[in-house]
Amino acid sequence: MPRFWGKLTRLNNAIEKARKQLKLHIETLDIPIIKANNLIVARNIHAPADLPSYSNSAVDGYAVRAEDTYGASPTNPVRLRVKGLLKPGDIPDLYGEIEFGEAIEVYTGAPLPPGANAVIMYEDTYRVDSEIEVIRQVPIYANVNLVGDDVKKGELIIKKGTQINPYHITLLVSLGVKRIRVYKPLNIGIVAIGDELVDLESQLIPGKKFTSTDILVEKYLEGLGFINPRRYGVVPDSLDELINALNKAFKKSNIVITIGGTSVSEKDLVPDYVDKYGLWIIRGIALRPGRTTSLAVINNKPLFALSGNPVAAWVGLEAFVKPLLYLWLGSKPPLNPYITAYLRQRVVNQVGYRSFVRVLLERASNTFYAIPYMVKGSSIISSLARSHGYIIIPEDHEGYEEGEQVKVHLLSNNISI
Amino acid sequence: MPRFWGKLTRLNNAIEKARKQLKLHIETLDIPIIKANNLIVARNIHAPADLPSYSNSAVDGYAVRAEDTYGASPTNPVRLRVKGLLKPGDIPDLYGEIEFGEAIEVYTGAPLPPGANAVIMYEDTYRVDSEIEVIRQVPIYANVNLVGDDVKKGELIIKKGTQINPYHITLLVSLGVKRIRVYKPLNIGIVAIGDELVDLESQLIPGKKFTSTDILVEKYLEGLGFINPRRYGVVPDSLDELINALNKAFKKSNIVITIGGTSVSEKDLVPDYVDKYGLWIIRGIALRPGRTTSLAVINNKPLFALSGNPVAAWVGLEAFVKPLLYLWLGSKPPLNPYITAYLRQRVVNQVGYRSFVRVLLERASNTFYAIPYMVKGSSIISSLARSHGYIIIPEDHEGYEEGEQVKVHLLSNNISI
Repeated sequence: MPRFWGKLTRLNNAIEKARKQLKLHIETLDIPIIKANNLIVARNIHAPADLPSYSNSAVDGYAVRAEDTYGASPTNPVRLRVKGLLKPGDIPDLYGEIEFGEAIEVYTGAPLPPGANAVIMYEDTYRVDSEIEVIRQVPIYANVNLVGDDVKKGELIIKKGTQINPYHITLLVSLGVKRIRVYKPLNIGIVAIGDELVDLESQLIPGKKFTSTDILVEKYLEGLGFINPRRYGVVPDSLDELINALNKAFKKSNIVITIGGTSVSEKDLVPDYVDKYGLWIIRGIALRPGRTTSLAVINNKPLFALSGNPVAAWVGLEAFVKPLLYLWLGSKPPLNPYITAYLRQRVVNQVGYRSFVRVLLERASNTFYAIPYMVKGSSIISSLARSHGYIIIPEDHEGYEEGEQVKVHLLSNNISI
Repeated sequence: MPRFWGKLTRLNNAIEKARKQLKLHIETLDIPIIKANNLIVARNIHAPADLPSYSNSAVDGYAVRAEDTYGASPTNPVRLRVKGLLKPGDIPDLYGEIEFGEAIEVYTGAPLPPGANAVIMYEDTYRVDSEIEVIRQVPIYANVNLVGDDVKKGELIIKKGTQINPYHITLLVSLGVKRIRVYKPLNIGIVAIGDELVDLESQLIPGKKFTSTDILVEKYLEGLGFINPRRYGVVPDSLDELINALNKAFKKSNIVITIGGTSVSEKDLVPDYVDKYGLWIIRGIALRPGRTTSLAVINNKPLFALSGNPVAAWVGLEAFVKPLLYLWLGSKPPLNPYITAYLRQRVVNQVGYRSFVRVLLERASNTFYAIPYMVKGSSIISSLARSHGYIIIPEDHEGYEEGEQVKVHLLSNNISI
């Protein structure tokens, strides 16, 4: 039965349709905050306490009653008796309450003693034995970090759907939060398809090649931080074996990704599997490369069909799979920062497609130049390893001219030149 | 003994000096390629094989001897006998050698059979039973991915000092590379100092707070991917206990980072430790916040002294520690991409300092706006968790005006708005 590609769906429409038509039912997990980095918060988090939890001094100086300093000046100093020295870590009432006419020396971060409502800096005082002369008046709360100044108890601090980063963890630990509720890492099964593929432990014979696109997908997904990818090995071009492998993968996965076997030749068996067990949500996306990128639903679970070609598979991940994973978890896809660069050569788009053009970056002092990475086909495996980043050319755009300024997104977090 | 800050070192000078004066002696590790993501390559890697390892067809069509097609046209077709069909994964000589007058049908990716030197696409042929009529001539190597087209055996493919990403892994696996030699993940010990600090398992009493800056440092370093950070708990403001903790940390670490206790008051004991056991390489850097950021050498090992203040500590990590870790490993610090945004409010720099200004991003269709995050002090822990990114104001710059275009670096890889 010959099959043909219908009209390819535009990327944004594909994402919107997939987001609406499929829901993930992910369990949540109560996890120690220390282990929650990169996981996605399943419930709004409210502050269980004030931060700081006690008022403290923002400077080195003397805790006082502000009223005692009113009218103080170099010509009319106010004398206060110093009752002691409070350091960070001391209990606030180590010397009891400050009465009128009294002061307590404080280091930055020391608790504000009871009775005090301001701190006067060293430089606005003269120390004379156990007394100080205050030569400047301070208003109430001067130089004080008040309890709750940073975060108020009960305040919404982290919204459901937020992907936890080290700064969230720092804040939560400061508030005494020991555990939070996150979505369980998504189990994603990866199945590579093709008679020509063998795994790295096999002996390579002519006509065979090492499977690597499945490893690219695995490592890419690991990098997102909230995915638990697992490779289910290589399946030959046999429908029975494909069915076995996918059934096994689906049993333990929230989502399955196939690599290869997704085009329209008689040898491509993913369409046969989908015809038998599910239905296509998106069959082909107007991406270059990556137009075979597809999404089906099998027993309410998503099946992404990616190209066996590593570059096309990568575009499918970056453009389609990644944003959907975030959206399905009620999160927003992360911003995609870039380096601004000038094109060394024209790049051309086939209008109607969204193109992902790999580039090399060159730097001349503080200016960056982008050189399109020219390859014969998208099958050139080394092109990703050798590129620094990529340019996206939108569907309605014919391309960019030589010399034009473009946004180069980096291929990973650790690209250096 | 009172101590004072001398002249602060400019960031670039501090990095250059530290890079030159300290060397890390890091062991290398032979590791399965699958586990090497984010690690730093310790030796140049050359291709052990050609890629592709066999010539193959870039299209669906017929493998031929190009010479057979010379002169072919719709009015003067050339007839060839089709000997069989080769699919990807088949051995190249399944049907023996192609002789003159013969063709073998091939799918994309199928090996080029011996004797063939080109592939003609379906659309340039008519199939008549076991023969084809070729209606167009093809040059030698047309539609063929030749052995070694992507990578030549022996070619330098990954340079020493490269931080491995998923695309490197894909390439290496394709080439049959099973293991590579990388630097062992750096063991970095983290010691938090301060009478006021307690760990998350403790009961919080007035005057105490949960230690969190050490956790920020740990999670930040984990995110770099080639570091094995370990927290050595909280040490009170006691020189003896600090010595014990640091000795213990140094025993198991390539580098130690102290958090807090690094300023110039009598309570700050890191300087006492350094005076006793080592010497300062950099004592204070012109960073805002983060000017107490310092580096000492203790028995040939680096000791970074960071502020107890989480924001100042973060600046120390981002501006100073991170680039140095890369440089010491013979690597280059990664590029720091950004989002271009317009400032909603003026930001001012103290000339001579490099300032790190946290900002919130707002989006109006495709335009981003940056709103400086205004806080009373750099001690405001929530400011990092609530910001999206930061602007760097260089030392010789007075700041940026409202409406000016600025580069906003994101605080982590997963910032969304």
